[in-house]
Amino acid sequence: MPTTSLVATAPPPARHAARATRSAGRRTRSALLDAAARLFRERGLADVSLSDIAAAADAFPSQVTYYFGSKEALFVEAACRDVLHAAAEVEAAGRRTRTRDAYARRLTAVALQSPAVPAFAEALLLARRRDDLRPLIARTLDRLHAEGARAVAERCLAQGWRLNAPPEAVARAFWATVLGIALESGGAGDAFDLHAAHAAVLATLSTTPPRRP
Amino acid sequence: MPTTSLVATAPPPARHAARATRSAGRRTRSALLDAAARLFRERGLADVSLSDIAAAADAFPSQVTYYFGSKEALFVEAACRDVLHAAAEVEAAGRRTRTRDAYARRLTAVALQSPAVPAFAEALLLARRRDDLRPLIARTLDRLHAEGARAVAERCLAQGWRLNAPPEAVARAFWATVLGIALESGGAGDAFDLHAAHAAVLATLSTTPPRRP
Repeated sequence: MPTTSLVATAPPPARHAARATRSAGRRTRSALLDAAARLFRERGLADVSLSDIAAAADAFPSQVTYYFGSKEALFVEAACRDVLHAAAEVEAAGRRTRTRDAYARRLTAVALQSPAVPAFAEALLLARRRDDLRPLIARTLDRLHAEGARAVAERCLAQGWRLNAPPEAVARAFWATVLGIALESGGAGDAFDLHAAHAAVLATLSTTPPRRP
Repeated sequence: MPTTSLVATAPPPARHAARATRSAGRRTRSALLDAAARLFRERGLADVSLSDIAAAADAFPSQVTYYFGSKEALFVEAACRDVLHAAAEVEAAGRRTRTRDAYARRLTAVALQSPAVPAFAEALLLARRRDDLRPLIARTLDRLHAEGARAVAERCLAQGWRLNAPPEAVARAFWATVLGIALESGGAGDAFDLHAAHAAVLATLSTTPPRRP
């Protein structure tokens, strides 16, 4: 079974036919991942079957298990890929702001709006009871924190802003709080005070000493 | 079907037989909730059936649906009850500390060790796709935040500590971060940097202006 990786690696030298097969394999794998991500987003893990995913990618159910091992492993891989894409969108949105406050507000709003965040939360819960799914989760969290730390450090350096904590700690606190708030908001629905919740995420991005009450 | 409530209400006046029936009903309901909470903790939602719960409480599967509506509703009610118990334990642990640092560290450690937190995270995810489960989630979050705000305000007043944010905001940030970190830690397993994660929760309880890096 192919191993999953966040980083595409160059194929080793091979004959044309083998290369074509591998290339077709990569296309099938990628099509399955795209189809699965869309179906999971629309219906949730429990209401999507291997056959649904295969049909949507014009493939066979056995190909899903060949490339990913299980529906749950496919779900986790899609969720990990999507949360890293969401993080890139958060970073890009932040670059379009000009003040510290606008930067923190934009990062918070874009992260909390992303459907990738609750999906990643579900992947985290799944991996809790599945040893085989944890390594990818651990790598994804490392990358989320490292990229977040780099992004916030770059931005603060460029703008002359000073953070109240090391960039790595800021990135960790930001994503943990975003995960918690996204879960709370989804679970409580309209009754949830999203304004008060935003403040909790904003606090993780604080660039000046907080005022005393 | 009986409505679910976080607060026990006194029964209205009634004849002895009716009272005895209601009292037996309350005992059955409570036994089912206890049995379900234990089974869910041991095996997770997916691997526990209505029959398992009924058998463990010496009841019939039809009684589970009569009292709770569905397995998912029972799971959410058990998770909400348990997270409020965990919050009371966090508060009690905090009262046994004497310094600001020890207080924050103790609250963080006890909250992150509680199995009730990931179970509540799973309940939040469930309610995301189930309108009927959201009102109890919303009430539980309100109570978690209100009790947390009261507890931290009382403790700071008694000790002469000053918070860096209003108590309500501190309680919200604390629980959101705890939820996020507990999810991350469970999903990534041993590879997770729990020390760095603790710092994110500690920051929500900050009682002095953080130092600049």
